[in-house]
Amino acid sequence: MEASMKALVFKGPRDMQYMEVPTPEPGPGEVRIHPKAVSICGSDTSGYKGGNKMRTPGLIMGHEFSGVIEKLGPNVTGVTVGQRVAVHHNIFCEKCRDCKEGRDNVCVNRAIIGTTMPVYGPYNGAMADYVIAPAKKIIPLPDHVSFNAAAMGEPLSIALRATEHVKILKDQIVLVYGAGPIGLLNMQCISARGAASIIAVDVADSRLDFAKKCGASRVINSKNEDVQKIVAELTDGGVDVIFDCVGIKETVNTGIKLVRCGGTVVWVGLSEASFEFDYKDAVCKEISFISAYMYTDELEKGLDLIAEGKLDVENIITGVYPMSEGAKHFELIAHGKSKDIKIILTND
Amino acid sequence: MEASMKALVFKGPRDMQYMEVPTPEPGPGEVRIHPKAVSICGSDTSGYKGGNKMRTPGLIMGHEFSGVIEKLGPNVTGVTVGQRVAVHHNIFCEKCRDCKEGRDNVCVNRAIIGTTMPVYGPYNGAMADYVIAPAKKIIPLPDHVSFNAAAMGEPLSIALRATEHVKILKDQIVLVYGAGPIGLLNMQCISARGAASIIAVDVADSRLDFAKKCGASRVINSKNEDVQKIVAELTDGGVDVIFDCVGIKETVNTGIKLVRCGGTVVWVGLSEASFEFDYKDAVCKEISFISAYMYTDELEKGLDLIAEGKLDVENIITGVYPMSEGAKHFELIAHGKSKDIKIILTND
Repeated sequence: MEASMKALVFKGPRDMQYMEVPTPEPGPGEVRIHPKAVSICGSDTSGYKGGNKMRTPGLIMGHEFSGVIEKLGPNVTGVTVGQRVAVHHNIFCEKCRDCKEGRDNVCVNRAIIGTTMPVYGPYNGAMADYVIAPAKKIIPLPDHVSFNAAAMGEPLSIALRATEHVKILKDQIVLVYGAGPIGLLNMQCISARGAASIIAVDVADSRLDFAKKCGASRVINSKNEDVQKIVAELTDGGVDVIFDCVGIKETVNTGIKLVRCGGTVVWVGLSEASFEFDYKDAVCKEISFISAYMYTDELEKGLDLIAEGKLDVENIITGVYPMSEGAKHFELIAHGKSKDIKIILTND
Repeated sequence: MEASMKALVFKGPRDMQYMEVPTPEPGPGEVRIHPKAVSICGSDTSGYKGGNKMRTPGLIMGHEFSGVIEKLGPNVTGVTVGQRVAVHHNIFCEKCRDCKEGRDNVCVNRAIIGTTMPVYGPYNGAMADYVIAPAKKIIPLPDHVSFNAAAMGEPLSIALRATEHVKILKDQIVLVYGAGPIGLLNMQCISARGAASIIAVDVADSRLDFAKKCGASRVINSKNEDVQKIVAELTDGGVDVIFDCVGIKETVNTGIKLVRCGGTVVWVGLSEASFEFDYKDAVCKEISFISAYMYTDELEKGLDLIAEGKLDVENIITGVYPMSEGAKHFELIAHGKSKDIKIILTND
């Protein structure tokens, strides 16, 4: 009889079921991991709502995770059963031009654990009793790093990459659009780089409270307050750098107004695919726009920073729930009824 | 009786008159110049058609020019009557934050010779017998630099600034959108920087012929040819750098498809103010977009390069006409009936 396990299976838009599925077997070079902490990512919830091609029906989501190695496939060396680990979830081909030139974050052939990619197809993720990962993607965790903190390594890597795309942040006036998990982790990274001040903009006061904990010196609720007026008062002609962790027409075009001439805008958020863009205004202010997408070696760097105690990534975790309750929380988030910033799903 | 001179006066959309106007007098610290070569810029023709707020009725256009100093105002030292000169046409305030931080190209208080600026208002340009300029903006010309070449210094400075915004061009595959004067001068600068190849894209074969003379190794007429297909054949996943010297929805969004992942797009052209922008595609390829606008010290650098014989900027000048015929050529350009790449208007 085939072994089975419990998993949160994405059956289709707004339909997630915690159900029995066959337990996956690790192939050559692979390990089986028992996830201990799996974080729900914004891309997971957008997939759940049906707005994301990277989440196809039948998929088990979960790419921000940590756990314990439970079984080794054939020919696996260097890791052991019982080891506490995080996983580099981007399984790139290592052969294409992008991989060879260090841009494995955009490898078109890549699989991503917990997503469906255009070329590779679906690769089941960690919202289950077990998940398979290549042994070479394993990142061992020091004993003092909690599973929850390690699960934050992946979103932290996104923030690290985005902020490292800007050479100088020290003494700069920085504005961050969006105080969700990515925006908050960006603030932590920007703060650690010695920015003069961080202005956080969001539409939810509850999130802005977290922004203060993550280094924001000023928070603006753009629903009630005039962001342009406040930024004009706070700065001499605009902020130096913007990190747009929202990525909609309003934030992108208002960003052009809020940044100083010759300033830098980093595009991180991807909430809208296309929109009317104030191109001429951007060029006449000689603004540079730097896109940041996924990570390459930033996951390892981020886990090191966590291990060294340099960032408190756990302070954005607001809810820890059993995997069996995962579907409920996806639905609460989809309805806009969740108060959580970052949710961790756990297995016993 | 007040002295008078002839000038091309912009009376309103599609109405340019070569007429008698009062001869301007140089004030303290100013000189009066007799223009010998004035180039028609794309922004002049867009102003002539009525599509440019920087050209208001009553203005005398002409910012790309060279000439001879004819009269000194009070308290002028360091320059002499009869001197052959170019002029740094951006008269910035020297006091605002942008000026103090070296971004005089975007000073909001600036006057620009030959344009109408929002704060300063109109400043008459060189399409006349005489033009006034601050003595400190004078750039003396070596005897061997022709007036025509010197008039190209201003568009060259735009190309120099745009290309210098990209650190590495050596051995890169570069695509230039637009083979008008700015595109062609960009190609000359890119070629001088040792690019592996330059792909020029335009909709006019006549312009693409000039692209070949300016360093393009491959030209594509996007009216008849499939740019994406050709670039896919010529490259492994896209070009390294794009200079968009057009700046319309089609070039900007097709540029996102033509550049490799992690590549750079420089936005130079300003033909459309806003448009639907393929934001997500750009971010998921991790493209950087660098805006380039006007110049700071690139005019002096460009005139040096011309004097050293390192660039042949005169090869894009296709028509030299007397100032009295200027209105006719504005109208021909506005009607799309001009075959010229770059027109120089001369005074005797």
